[in-house]
Amino acid sequence: MTSSDHKWVYAFRDGDDSMRNLLGGKGAGSAEMTKAGMPVPPGFTITTEACLAYFEGNESFPEDLQSQIDAALIDVESQTGKSFGSSDNPLLVSVRSGARVSMPGMMDTVLNLGLNTQTIAGLTKRTGDARFSNDAYRRFVQGFGAIVLGIDSRAFEAVIEAHKEAVQKAEDPELTAEDWETVTAQFKEIIKRESGEVFPDDPREQLTRAVQAVFKSWNGKRAIDYRNFHRLPHDWGTACNVQTMVFGNMGGRSGTGVAFTRDPNDGNPVLYGEYLLNAQGEDVVAGVRTPQPISTLQEAMPSVYEEFQAYAEKLEGHYTEMQDLEFTIEDGQLFMLQTRAGKRSPAAAIRIAVDLVNEGKITKETAVKRVEATQVDAMLHPRIDGTEQINPIAQGLNASPGAASGRVAFTADTAATRAENGDAVILVRPETSPDDFHGMAASQAILTSRGGATSHAAIVARQLGLPAVVGCESLDIDVSAGIFLIDGLEVSDGDILTVDGSTGNVMLGEVPLIPGEVTPELEQLLEWADDIRRLETWANADTPVEAELARSYGAQGIGLCRTEHMFREGDRLPIVQDMILAETEQDRRKSLAQLLPIQRDDFYGILKAMHDLPVVIRLLDPPLHEFLAGVENELAELEARDANAEDLALAKRKVTRANELHEANPMLGLRGCRLGLIYPEVYEMQVRAIIEAALQLKSEGVRARPEIMIPLVSHIAELKTIESGLRETAAAVQRDAGDEIEFKFGTMMEVPRACLTAGEISETAEFLSFGTNDLTQTTFGISRDDAEGRFLLRYVEDGILAENPFQVLDRTGVGALMEIAARAGRAARNDIEIGICGEHGGDPSSIEFCELIGLDYVSASPYRVPVSRIAAAHARLEQEFRDR
Amino acid sequence: MTSSDHKWVYAFRDGDDSMRNLLGGKGAGSAEMTKAGMPVPPGFTITTEACLAYFEGNESFPEDLQSQIDAALIDVESQTGKSFGSSDNPLLVSVRSGARVSMPGMMDTVLNLGLNTQTIAGLTKRTGDARFSNDAYRRFVQGFGAIVLGIDSRAFEAVIEAHKEAVQKAEDPELTAEDWETVTAQFKEIIKRESGEVFPDDPREQLTRAVQAVFKSWNGKRAIDYRNFHRLPHDWGTACNVQTMVFGNMGGRSGTGVAFTRDPNDGNPVLYGEYLLNAQGEDVVAGVRTPQPISTLQEAMPSVYEEFQAYAEKLEGHYTEMQDLEFTIEDGQLFMLQTRAGKRSPAAAIRIAVDLVNEGKITKETAVKRVEATQVDAMLHPRIDGTEQINPIAQGLNASPGAASGRVAFTADTAATRAENGDAVILVRPETSPDDFHGMAASQAILTSRGGATSHAAIVARQLGLPAVVGCESLDIDVSAGIFLIDGLEVSDGDILTVDGSTGNVMLGEVPLIPGEVTPELEQLLEWADDIRRLETWANADTPVEAELARSYGAQGIGLCRTEHMFREGDRLPIVQDMILAETEQDRRKSLAQLLPIQRDDFYGILKAMHDLPVVIRLLDPPLHEFLAGVENELAELEARDANAEDLALAKRKVTRANELHEANPMLGLRGCRLGLIYPEVYEMQVRAIIEAALQLKSEGVRARPEIMIPLVSHIAELKTIESGLRETAAAVQRDAGDEIEFKFGTMMEVPRACLTAGEISETAEFLSFGTNDLTQTTFGISRDDAEGRFLLRYVEDGILAENPFQVLDRTGVGALMEIAARAGRAARNDIEIGICGEHGGDPSSIEFCELIGLDYVSASPYRVPVSRIAAAHARLEQEFRDR
Repeated sequence: MTSSDHKWVYAFRDGDDSMRNLLGGKGAGSAEMTKAGMPVPPGFTITTEACLAYFEGNESFPEDLQSQIDAALIDVESQTGKSFGSSDNPLLVSVRSGARVSMPGMMDTVLNLGLNTQTIAGLTKRTGDARFSNDAYRRFVQGFGAIVLGIDSRAFEAVIEAHKEAVQKAEDPELTAEDWETVTAQFKEIIKRESGEVFPDDPREQLTRAVQAVFKSWNGKRAIDYRNFHRLPHDWGTACNVQTMVFGNMGGRSGTGVAFTRDPNDGNPVLYGEYLLNAQGEDVVAGVRTPQPISTLQEAMPSVYEEFQAYAEKLEGHYTEMQDLEFTIEDGQLFMLQTRAGKRSPAAAIRIAVDLVNEGKITKETAVKRVEATQVDAMLHPRIDGTEQINPIAQGLNASPGAASGRVAFTADTAATRAENGDAVILVRPETSPDDFHGMAASQAILTSRGGATSHAAIVARQLGLPAVVGCESLDIDVSAGIFLIDGLEVSDGDILTVDGSTGNVMLGEVPLIPGEVTPELEQLLEWADDIRRLETWANADTPVEAELARSYGAQGIGLCRTEHMFREGDRLPIVQDMILAETEQDRRKSLAQLLPIQRDDFYGILKAMHDLPVVIRLLDPPLHEFLAGVENELAELEARDANAEDLALAKRKVTRANELHEANPMLGLRGCRLGLIYPEVYEMQVRAIIEAALQLKSEGVRARPEIMIPLVSHIAELKTIESGLRETAAAVQRDAGDEIEFKFGTMMEVPRACLTAGEISETAEFLSFGTNDLTQTTFGISRDDAEGRFLLRYVEDGILAENPFQVLDRTGVGALMEIAARAGRAARNDIEIGICGEHGGDPSSIEFCELIGLDYVSASPYRVPVSRIAAAHARLEQEFRDR
Repeated sequence: MTSSDHKWVYAFRDGDDSMRNLLGGKGAGSAEMTKAGMPVPPGFTITTEACLAYFEGNESFPEDLQSQIDAALIDVESQTGKSFGSSDNPLLVSVRSGARVSMPGMMDTVLNLGLNTQTIAGLTKRTGDARFSNDAYRRFVQGFGAIVLGIDSRAFEAVIEAHKEAVQKAEDPELTAEDWETVTAQFKEIIKRESGEVFPDDPREQLTRAVQAVFKSWNGKRAIDYRNFHRLPHDWGTACNVQTMVFGNMGGRSGTGVAFTRDPNDGNPVLYGEYLLNAQGEDVVAGVRTPQPISTLQEAMPSVYEEFQAYAEKLEGHYTEMQDLEFTIEDGQLFMLQTRAGKRSPAAAIRIAVDLVNEGKITKETAVKRVEATQVDAMLHPRIDGTEQINPIAQGLNASPGAASGRVAFTADTAATRAENGDAVILVRPETSPDDFHGMAASQAILTSRGGATSHAAIVARQLGLPAVVGCESLDIDVSAGIFLIDGLEVSDGDILTVDGSTGNVMLGEVPLIPGEVTPELEQLLEWADDIRRLETWANADTPVEAELARSYGAQGIGLCRTEHMFREGDRLPIVQDMILAETEQDRRKSLAQLLPIQRDDFYGILKAMHDLPVVIRLLDPPLHEFLAGVENELAELEARDANAEDLALAKRKVTRANELHEANPMLGLRGCRLGLIYPEVYEMQVRAIIEAALQLKSEGVRARPEIMIPLVSHIAELKTIESGLRETAAAVQRDAGDEIEFKFGTMMEVPRACLTAGEISETAEFLSFGTNDLTQTTFGISRDDAEGRFLLRYVEDGILAENPFQVLDRTGVGALMEIAARAGRAARNDIEIGICGEHGGDPSSIEFCELIGLDYVSASPYRVPVSRIAAAHARLEQEFRDR
């Protein structure tokens, strides 16, 4: 890259959209618009390669970059007739960052660059407006000071306020050219004091400094956090755009605005946006004057509107994607400043994708590709209706999707107490720590002023499925006073707030929410996704109701039906406890005989709900002492109220048995198939119940497809011993009934040894199901219960781990075992069915990995099925792309 | 094998020692002796292949076997001039099993086969002694009934006793020909009643039945158990030897005896054995008459003795191995009946191997190969002096090495109670169950009447390192009466017994024991082993005393020095607890500053003891709450005695903190490097202490070689983060001292993920040490503490697992991970040092695996070092053999 003929700089008219990686999104867009003949102020783009070369060169420009910038400036001068540094007709430029994809946290725009004590005269000459040019200069010094030199913007604002007071004027527009001159002089003093350097007067130095600041902002903390969160590579670099200034604040026939080609809230296909006459972009942001809806421009400046609308249509058609446009009108002339894919709400994303297909603009595949799994996820959480008018008081990082309203609480304890009293609470903290966990879990949403996408608050909120907005830096929280300030607005403890974790918006008061739902557009999109994906999407469900819900969300099977939940329900627990207290197999069988009809009903219900689809039923898994939890309290209670001797004796036996069964590390103790080997009669009862239920359904004309899963196998001998016994039971039940049903035996892959010996295991198992929760625990040697609060989240916060491996499958370790197992399993039995039933089954990155290693299905909570459907389609498209 | 020209039968004179696999040890020995011109009664061997073909053919003789047996009999007839079934000069034969290696549990000898109501007349005619021939017939019917037909021998003994009473005679020799005739008739009735069949009169049928019984005994339970225990294959089969009878009970110039070419107790190179005149082999066993030492034969029958001694020397020279010989003298003529490698005590095995090398008969390699690791192990346990005269009252299976004396206890509770009172206890049970564990752990040795080498008692005893004799079937235990009977002898609760788990012998009273030691012969052998082995043998040691012990046993390094033991000792615990109670890093650092000099002294001591050798020091590993164990009791005690407020407050804080630190699964919780990341100052102090100690030693001219081990790494980022911090600490300490020492940083491989990512890890780690205890726990998903008592031992008992994976490394699962890791580790860093420091490091099979995957060293308890030295040599020899 240091070769002297390397091209670091492209004029807008030399680039096009195919050069996005080199020119960044903004640069490529400007080039494309220029090529399409739209009125784009002349300019050029310094490439992303130049940025990378800058870092490689230890923060110095690569050879030739400066000369190429100079040449490009001369080119712009010749296009505009203006001259950089000229005191007659000065060329002023804006300098903006622009990476491949839009990325918050990088450098804002520096406007009016090129102004100095000489060129200001030229500007006054050209505009005939000294106030305008002094204001422009003031804006430049202020922007350059804040953005390039990193000086706190509030220092500048304070000078303006003080000056207004001194000259007794209320608003900025009342200030004169001289006022601005005084203010600017004070700005320069602040700059000198804070940065120790004199404000650069040389336009070329200004430009160099601004370009360097753009490059450096690529490695700013917020930008890095953002890339980490969105898993974007750090080695893309950013381009830098230098463009001739046009002025929207040159009078009533000037203005500036932004517009989307469709409504970004709900996807409605009409031009959507706003503009301000006689204003620069920053005035829109400052909020002193209220912008007008874009539609009113049609009346105000009909021909400009028409021209803009034509460009908008053309650009959307060209990109086949909803565009976010920036424009400026300078003295009646329209300039297009930016076009890029527009950010939109999840609902809008889905509607636009579907509409574009219906309009014949994109393929179904493209539509599916464009909607992110997190957007589908957000649709399934409560959300703010896109058509609702909202007035955010702040915006932070959208760290965990969904929206919620509640009363502000500033401490975890307050949150927990209020929640106990039935209040909906929004926990507002500068940041959260593990000590706040109880308060977080009790809240409806989390809002913090500090921290990024991997802050404690963000991680825990995603974990808990709570909406969260983090790093909302405009919040000034005073916990002890019980208030926070935002732009002068004071919000107190107990005030009602609405937090939208899908957008990052924070609203005062209660905003009406609509519940999570699969809209018709989403359903359409998911059906297209279904046509694409290879992976089946199953769901984990323990009851007929859950099974029906899963089926309604498109589940193609039950990947995990846990039978222990069935053991815990009220009327069954005493029988289960009797079974556990039994001292002989005979006594145990008596209790099990009581459980048999109950279990049979359980299985009947779920198999019926899932008729024609497979249902993987896991035989009893947890350690038996779990069913004796709380027996100490039971005993204490009985003793307190002088209960009869018989009840007391039973309670005492329970306590004794619970102590006997106590384990140092229950996760790794007597559970799963180990129980099935020590007490074979338990699994025998369960298999009998399953087969009997399926036979009953068959006699009713319903096709049941149970798949019997033996948990926690670490050695083929465990599986073989249990399976052969249970196969006999199944055969006997069928023989007695004089009928046969279809069923499978298989195992859960949840310890490393099972994965390492999957070849042997698959000679017996007809299916394998990765229980990646436990597999992650055993592969890392980490107990999730103990680790997350104590150190695992901190690992993620500190960047020791990029992700919590219980949320995003660890491909290097756990994934390696899965791959070994899947390969060996298929080699041993080529029609073996292999799936995943850990929580990872609903996580897009993990689903992608499951596609990669060729699993047959993913299974997660019923609510995650739509997410799985789209993620599986994405994974397939990605895979096909790689296969090409 | 069914081809009609297959040779199933070999006459002794057609075989030789090279045909051991085909003819079995006994057959090959007889053939070899015949070939050497020694007087072996003519006979033939039916091959092991015939045995296997018999099983393959569903328990029927392969084609041609019967005809080959018939032909071989004709051959023997022609050699002896006797005739099978003849009532004139009948050929009588013995039928004996004989596998490749001597194997208890297979069929005993059937003597006098060929006798029936006709041939008995011939025998009487030849011997002129009707009493002799009737007694011989009686012995045959009794032996055939018991051994071939499986009838309880005691039924026959009862008949003899009843008859003696009826005819008022005290001893067998007083019984007449007629008496024996009557007794034999009654034997036949018993046989008819018990087996439902008439005793076979046809000698050919007798022979066929006896051969089949020999074959079947190969698959008898005891034989299978024995093979499982000694890891011998089940598909060898046994040969069957049919040999002309010679009679040692034909008068004063007849006799029978056994002799070893060297003393099997201590290896002394003199003929050792005993004989009885006018007796058959079974009379020696019956113990009615006391056999004479073999040396007295020199006077009794000088020429026979001389002849025998010559044969003995020749045979030992031929086999270059101590021989166990059987002989019979028939009317002054010596017959050699058997030669085989003699069983011997561990001490004898070692001495003989060393002597044979010194005598120039075998190579050092052969000597090393011949001594088993378990024999070396036995030498290190207390044992009975081989020169001591012992009178075993019973012999069972030698299930766990070492010897011990103590008072008999029949229940686990009794054993536990007595042990608490300071008594040495021998637990005697029909068999043990998990409920007996506390009593077993409290005993000096275990003795059971039932069960084999994989019985609960055997497994637990090996685990606990206790001597055990199991399956001692001659014991008749009455637990409720508190006695056991053995051959009429009554032993009561509280009587003193000595149990020798190395030999299986049980002695009444206290037999003097000699402590475990490395004898000069053993040291010699181990030095030869050292020349052979490639694997280094290190030891796990936490104190200077242990380190010195390890060094004296030949340890070449410390593979695991656990620092937590150093934290637990009396005066340190309060400081450690203070550290854990500290609420700020600053307070923690204060406590750590107090610990620093203490730790430095610890490390100084151990590094000095191991000067010039590497010492792997593991940084703090256990969860912090372990250091707060028992604080509830402390508090309760203080409350009970109204302690002062300050002490109470401290105790309360400890309890609170212990509760905070409580974990559901501490094995998988906040421990190891996770602690090091959350409280970096702890590891920092430890590294400072290590480096300072090493610097101090250097200044004293002692070379210290610390290797700092970071435990429980599952992700390279953990290791990298900690290592880089500690490397800075180490650098700072050295900088301050103005000197440098040699040290390494490395990690313990104890979770599957570390193994799966060993390539990444080895870019940072300079050494890897497999912690196979935890690695086995995480690979299987099994908590050893919870599993062994509850289900794991039962898995081994039930044959679900062949071995307890915490004793013998699981090559398929855990081993696969180790192999993956070792390969990736070397690929990433070719001089990386890789070892094992789990308990498996002292287990021969596991050591063999470590050789196989090319580890650098094995490390186990200091006492296991000699075992590791010989096992490592065996592994190397095995490996070289495979490489050939």
